[in-house]
Amino acid sequence: MQRRLRTSTALPSAWVPTFAPLTCRRWKSGPYGYTQAKALVYSKYGEPSDVLSLHNHSISPSLPSSSLLLRALAAPINPADINQIQGVYPSRPPFTSLLGTASPSAVAGNEGCFEVQAVGSGIKSVSKGDWVIMASTSFGTWRTHALADESAVLKIENKDGLTPIQVGTVSVNPCTAYRMLKDFETLEEGDWFIQNGANSGVGRAAIQLGNLWGLNSINVIRDRPDAEATQAMKDELLSLGATHVVTESELVSNSFSGQIGEWTSGGSKKVKIGLNCVGGKATSALIKCLSTSGHLVTYGAMSKQPLMLPAGALIFKDIKFSGFWVSRWSDNNVAEKKRMVEELLDLTRKGRFKDAPVQQLKWDWGTEEGVLKEAVQGTLEGFRAGKGVLVFGDT
Amino acid sequence: MQRRLRTSTALPSAWVPTFAPLTCRRWKSGPYGYTQAKALVYSKYGEPSDVLSLHNHSISPSLPSSSLLLRALAAPINPADINQIQGVYPSRPPFTSLLGTASPSAVAGNEGCFEVQAVGSGIKSVSKGDWVIMASTSFGTWRTHALADESAVLKIENKDGLTPIQVGTVSVNPCTAYRMLKDFETLEEGDWFIQNGANSGVGRAAIQLGNLWGLNSINVIRDRPDAEATQAMKDELLSLGATHVVTESELVSNSFSGQIGEWTSGGSKKVKIGLNCVGGKATSALIKCLSTSGHLVTYGAMSKQPLMLPAGALIFKDIKFSGFWVSRWSDNNVAEKKRMVEELLDLTRKGRFKDAPVQQLKWDWGTEEGVLKEAVQGTLEGFRAGKGVLVFGDT
Repeated sequence: MQRRLRTSTALPSAWVPTFAPLTCRRWKSGPYGYTQAKALVYSKYGEPSDVLSLHNHSISPSLPSSSLLLRALAAPINPADINQIQGVYPSRPPFTSLLGTASPSAVAGNEGCFEVQAVGSGIKSVSKGDWVIMASTSFGTWRTHALADESAVLKIENKDGLTPIQVGTVSVNPCTAYRMLKDFETLEEGDWFIQNGANSGVGRAAIQLGNLWGLNSINVIRDRPDAEATQAMKDELLSLGATHVVTESELVSNSFSGQIGEWTSGGSKKVKIGLNCVGGKATSALIKCLSTSGHLVTYGAMSKQPLMLPAGALIFKDIKFSGFWVSRWSDNNVAEKKRMVEELLDLTRKGRFKDAPVQQLKWDWGTEEGVLKEAVQGTLEGFRAGKGVLVFGDT
Repeated sequence: MQRRLRTSTALPSAWVPTFAPLTCRRWKSGPYGYTQAKALVYSKYGEPSDVLSLHNHSISPSLPSSSLLLRALAAPINPADINQIQGVYPSRPPFTSLLGTASPSAVAGNEGCFEVQAVGSGIKSVSKGDWVIMASTSFGTWRTHALADESAVLKIENKDGLTPIQVGTVSVNPCTAYRMLKDFETLEEGDWFIQNGANSGVGRAAIQLGNLWGLNSINVIRDRPDAEATQAMKDELLSLGATHVVTESELVSNSFSGQIGEWTSGGSKKVKIGLNCVGGKATSALIKCLSTSGHLVTYGAMSKQPLMLPAGALIFKDIKFSGFWVSRWSDNNVAEKKRMVEELLDLTRKGRFKDAPVQQLKWDWGTEEGVLKEAVQGTLEGFRAGKGVLVFGDT
């Protein structure tokens, strides 16, 4: 594959492309047919603003028989992508020289929606114009184009009525919510779950899936600076199907266990599962809301505090503690991931599942490196209202 | 049943027995046939030395058709028994007036071996002379005699070659070790487990069962004051079948992960399960020894410190955390408990499973209340080398 990927910027002279002059954008109709592409790459771990660079390269039109040429439509900026660049994430893409970078590099980004632009002669399962998402993590999705093996993508069977953003953001947050509600405890209609970070992408997905599946939910949000903002967030989550929404200060108040008892008919209905992305004291309070033999599933640690487990909760209350990492799950369950994604997208198409609010960050051909790095930095610093999604335009 | 239980000490006058004068020990051959009995009871929660009292009563010979008359042979003093008396244990026996105490009371003790002295006319499954253990917790075993429903006991099918102490101590510690190694992860021959408190009753049972089942064990003990005592304890556990024995200070040393790697052939063999009865920092170090997707099962908290779970261990290393409470398990799995007890006693009979060292505390008819309370207090204060077991003599 290395021979087919040509480069155009800041390379040792041995790498300066001789076959793909970059005076025009593409040669699709020309004799060479090279595709000119850009990718946000990093060759060492660090802060995105320090280590990311926009790398230009070109892709040969002679596709290997088992390969696809993809064009990016939308790719979100997830917190895990940032942690991966910082080198503090356990899954690390391999650093390679395949894109012709000066040093071995990785393309950043893990999730996205791509359109198939061309297929190798041996490809049966996807065709030009199809939309695909990544089968596994560490694909490197912050790029305008990519060559991919057929096995690296999952075809979206029916893209009608869907946006690239909906497809490009389905496989991390909604899938995390789906698996946590399905795989850890057998939940029956009328059962309850409790979650913190309820207005996150995962939280919103859990509210809606729980509602569709007949579950009741207790949703914890952080206290807002003013009552009006708190009420607005509560109303927003209630409109998605939340049964109850409470603030962290309501959760830790003494009267809250009585409130839970009232909601669950004195405990005759069980709070079987808790979804946790916070940690520390706020999670200790959440654990107390679980029924005997309940299960806390942790998928994040926004407070950066560890969980404190009193032995009594483990031994006498029989609370089980597990973690969920969608990357591991996806890599081990490709077929079920595809089925679940289709189910979620079908719900989206029918208007029964709303994607979380996002802030679109346009990536056109002329978009400069600094602008893209700032977009990434925005997620890192958390000042963005919705999730940042790179939306590819004229690339 | 209340009418059949007569009392002899410190009762309101309405309770002074009129049918069962206590001038002689028993009337087995006499016209009344009353059995004179003693029990360590408590009518309020508190320190055993404050709240326990030795209560005399008598049991009518007219057994209900579904009842058994039992005579105690051996009953251990487990830490949980003490916590139950202190009122800090979640399972609490009902306080009743059945024994004719001045205030409603509970008989202390949960585990024990009893001999059947007489059976009601409707009893089919046990006969006079059989040995039984308790089917559930909170039976009240610190007493010379008891009336019991048939369903409250499990018959020991073959008591040949067994001592009352072996039978009377099988259902808490060895059963806890058995279930923790069987029910949480599928362990295959050659797999590893790690445990702290390795010289406890549960720890010794886990070492021996692990060894019988082809498992390798890493056993953590507290540091002894001198190297000789440490080595003696290591040797003792190695002789039971421990693969390796290490001290807490060895466990927390930087070189220990390398040591684990060496023992497990660079991780090609998995440390699938950890058994924890300590908590706090020593357990954090133990958790780090588990392989990916390992499972920590907590059954005690000797350090009285909670577990600290870094979210990464849950999410990325996929470590699962559960608790095990033998009381709950036993109450829900009576048939399997009986089968397992027979299996353990069969191993004991064949010399393949050694019971933990105990200190025998004799309870004869003349043993005074103060002596018995001191025996209990000895467990509370932890100065005893082996587990204290009340051994009933001439009662």
